[in-house]
Amino acid sequence: MAKKSEEGLTVKKSEDFSEWYSQVLDKAEITDLRYGVKGFVVIRPWGARILENMYQLFEKELQRKGHEPTFFPTVIPEENFKKEASHVEGFTPEVFWLEQKQGDEKLALRPTSETAMYQMYSLWIRSHRDLPLKIYQRGNVFRYETKATRPLIRGREFMWIEAHNCFETKEEAESQVQEDIEITETVMHQKFGVPFFPMKRPAWDRFAGAEYTVGSDCLMPDGKFIQQPSTHLLGQHFSKAFDVTFKDKNEETKYVWQTCYGPAPSRILASIISTHGDDAGLVLPFAISPIQVAIVPIFRKDNKDKVLKGIEKIKTTLENAGIKTQIDLRDKRPGEKYYEWELKGVPFRLDIGENEIKEKELTLFTRNTKKKSKILIKDLKTIKNLGIKYDKELLSVADKGIKGKTKDCKTIEEIEKTIEDKKIARVNFCSIEKEGNACAEIVEKKVKAFIRGTMANKDEKPTGNCPVCNKKATAVVYIGRSY
Amino acid sequence: MAKKSEEGLTVKKSEDFSEWYSQVLDKAEITDLRYGVKGFVVIRPWGARILENMYQLFEKELQRKGHEPTFFPTVIPEENFKKEASHVEGFTPEVFWLEQKQGDEKLALRPTSETAMYQMYSLWIRSHRDLPLKIYQRGNVFRYETKATRPLIRGREFMWIEAHNCFETKEEAESQVQEDIEITETVMHQKFGVPFFPMKRPAWDRFAGAEYTVGSDCLMPDGKFIQQPSTHLLGQHFSKAFDVTFKDKNEETKYVWQTCYGPAPSRILASIISTHGDDAGLVLPFAISPIQVAIVPIFRKDNKDKVLKGIEKIKTTLENAGIKTQIDLRDKRPGEKYYEWELKGVPFRLDIGENEIKEKELTLFTRNTKKKSKILIKDLKTIKNLGIKYDKELLSVADKGIKGKTKDCKTIEEIEKTIEDKKIARVNFCSIEKEGNACAEIVEKKVKAFIRGTMANKDEKPTGNCPVCNKKATAVVYIGRSY
Repeated sequence: MAKKSEEGLTVKKSEDFSEWYSQVLDKAEITDLRYGVKGFVVIRPWGARILENMYQLFEKELQRKGHEPTFFPTVIPEENFKKEASHVEGFTPEVFWLEQKQGDEKLALRPTSETAMYQMYSLWIRSHRDLPLKIYQRGNVFRYETKATRPLIRGREFMWIEAHNCFETKEEAESQVQEDIEITETVMHQKFGVPFFPMKRPAWDRFAGAEYTVGSDCLMPDGKFIQQPSTHLLGQHFSKAFDVTFKDKNEETKYVWQTCYGPAPSRILASIISTHGDDAGLVLPFAISPIQVAIVPIFRKDNKDKVLKGIEKIKTTLENAGIKTQIDLRDKRPGEKYYEWELKGVPFRLDIGENEIKEKELTLFTRNTKKKSKILIKDLKTIKNLGIKYDKELLSVADKGIKGKTKDCKTIEEIEKTIEDKKIARVNFCSIEKEGNACAEIVEKKVKAFIRGTMANKDEKPTGNCPVCNKKATAVVYIGRSY
Repeated sequence: MAKKSEEGLTVKKSEDFSEWYSQVLDKAEITDLRYGVKGFVVIRPWGARILENMYQLFEKELQRKGHEPTFFPTVIPEENFKKEASHVEGFTPEVFWLEQKQGDEKLALRPTSETAMYQMYSLWIRSHRDLPLKIYQRGNVFRYETKATRPLIRGREFMWIEAHNCFETKEEAESQVQEDIEITETVMHQKFGVPFFPMKRPAWDRFAGAEYTVGSDCLMPDGKFIQQPSTHLLGQHFSKAFDVTFKDKNEETKYVWQTCYGPAPSRILASIISTHGDDAGLVLPFAISPIQVAIVPIFRKDNKDKVLKGIEKIKTTLENAGIKTQIDLRDKRPGEKYYEWELKGVPFRLDIGENEIKEKELTLFTRNTKKKSKILIKDLKTIKNLGIKYDKELLSVADKGIKGKTKDCKTIEEIEKTIEDKKIARVNFCSIEKEGNACAEIVEKKVKAFIRGTMANKDEKPTGNCPVCNKKATAVVYIGRSY
């Protein structure tokens, strides 16, 4: 299975990001694009193991915040879609339908599960004591994308987590939106090292059926935004459509307030790869790397047994410290192995021969800096801490990477130049409500970039006028190109 | 969300198993059957958490045996199905198709993934050094069942793991079949406490495209078999159809030998529920119970804070010992809470008031025996060992339960009586190859039971003649009714 990875990356990340990204997916054995159905890709073992770790960290955090797991059917009756008008309008073009019907009714593959889950919520929720209801599910969803698909970034099937919550009051629902931003911060930013702008989307860019939408915009190396987890204040649109009510403390019947939140591990992996990778390949955070320390044994025929015995002991020491370790026993030259573990982004590598074992001191290769250092066998357990430090370094480099990418702009010309420079324009804007759409369309047309929204977790005060209509600004918006 | 579970089970397991099973699924909040699409059920949080634990134990064991995870698309082009003749014939009636096509080609929802995976194997495998290839995926599959569906037992969507392996030789593939039986033994029998008969199926009951099939037959309380993980020696049928070849050590091109193995956690959960449950509800193995110790606090207004503070400490002690613990703080009477945790099958319960904390000795309720015992606070960590002992007890009771269920039968009349007694007939039989089918059909017609196969992991020597055709027996078969 190693045929491909024997060849190196043939482009530099800074010179041709798009080709670099494709080559990394292929050569680091994350995906295989030869499956033959548009928008459907195969996730290979290395990719699957990373994604599994990502799922676990997200699910753990969701559970820590009081969510419980469920599994809902993949199939949704058409009738359910129709219950919420803007939702059916927004999603219908993207729905895969089954050839088999139930009676006269068509069945959809879920593009998202509001309409599957909320009919059950209306059965489950009776009283204020049943609230808040915080539920998520892990599962794939399906969207009949008509735009060009890109592996992990835009597919017709993708790996998802969707959390759907119900509350007594709008205030509680709104604080859930903030909690969702915090979950993205804790997992995607702090653990995976991917910085993001939590953008409250303008009215014309809301989720079908939501009062408002917050998208986590991450920057790709080509200066374009990619939307990562989004969270929606659904308000009472769906609870009214699906009759999800509760009796409050005064025995009055009320509709619940709802939110939903959807991190897609497969898409987030695209950001992880793009943010940390370099010209030698992947650079994986210690927290999600399937192998945290790769050991390459160096031996001759006459000392093979001795070396391997010593290495087994080292592996046991590392594993007992909770460090995921693999000895590379494949029939290849050490140089090829070094090269492959770098390509696959493993944080640490130990190259161990007879001498190292005798001296009780090993050489530790660190993937991000490509530096070698010495580590005593008795100190091996400290690699756990080095791993934490490693992830902090990735985070700090990524954070620095997006600093200085945002530029305050006062005119269309300044916006245009900023976008051309692959940066983000920060602009005083007339409005992100409906009435701002005309100005947004002018910006889109002139600079081929989009109003991504306002900062959702802080209140940025506008100071000037809108650069398009010259009316007094009511919002500070961020403008950029996007995937 | 607790409305339902406030009512108890209204039937005894021994008197109306079918109704008991339905009530447990509903009242212990495993599933909700009101989703409204035939064969698709909602898995509620309690069920989802159990299933997640089951997945993890199965995946861990598969990985320990050298399997790597992958994620393949849910959608398979029709062309792929057509490549293996008996497979397309066996599965086509059960396939859900998408309304959207790719060009002229229909797209199926996977009923199983041979035809998705093996086209990629033919790209991945080049040399004997790429073998063995041992890969599995976790994912749902879809079958357009025309028979009656039953929750968790037979659905149109179910939760699955499928492992697909390739080897250089038939011998290696055959030992994989035995390894698969061992995995079922280690996880389903040893950890979940569900005993099984590994049955090598007769020729007329093989997987579409397999040389032979081994099904793990478990007994339900109504005396019927249910098939749990099956494993198939695919031989070279698929490798020839999908051109999966390798160059051996002599540079000769050969087709790989294949096996596949498919445990369905959702279906296995049906066996766990049925095997261990009692008239008070679920009895969950300690190894998979989402909560291993439920704590019910007993307090008055004037000592509430004191009691809760003491209980928090106890919880921390238990959690530090790796025991999943929950304090039940809901606004309900202790009696209701006792009842609910019993219904939900939690292995241990601690009922703790001020006195218990003062005396440093607690009362431990054990779910399977319903006995109470005393445990010192300082000994709480031993609950981990009690949990292991608990699971061994469940296993031993289950094993005893199927002992004496098998009866040697020499005549059709004996078989008939054994089946009527809800037992399994062990019979000398002419043949489990094609030529035995005529006799099998006579048995089916006369006693309404099926030849399940021969013991797959031991060689049982036949001694007499076939009770139907009176020819010399070549096999010892097991006959029973089934789901």
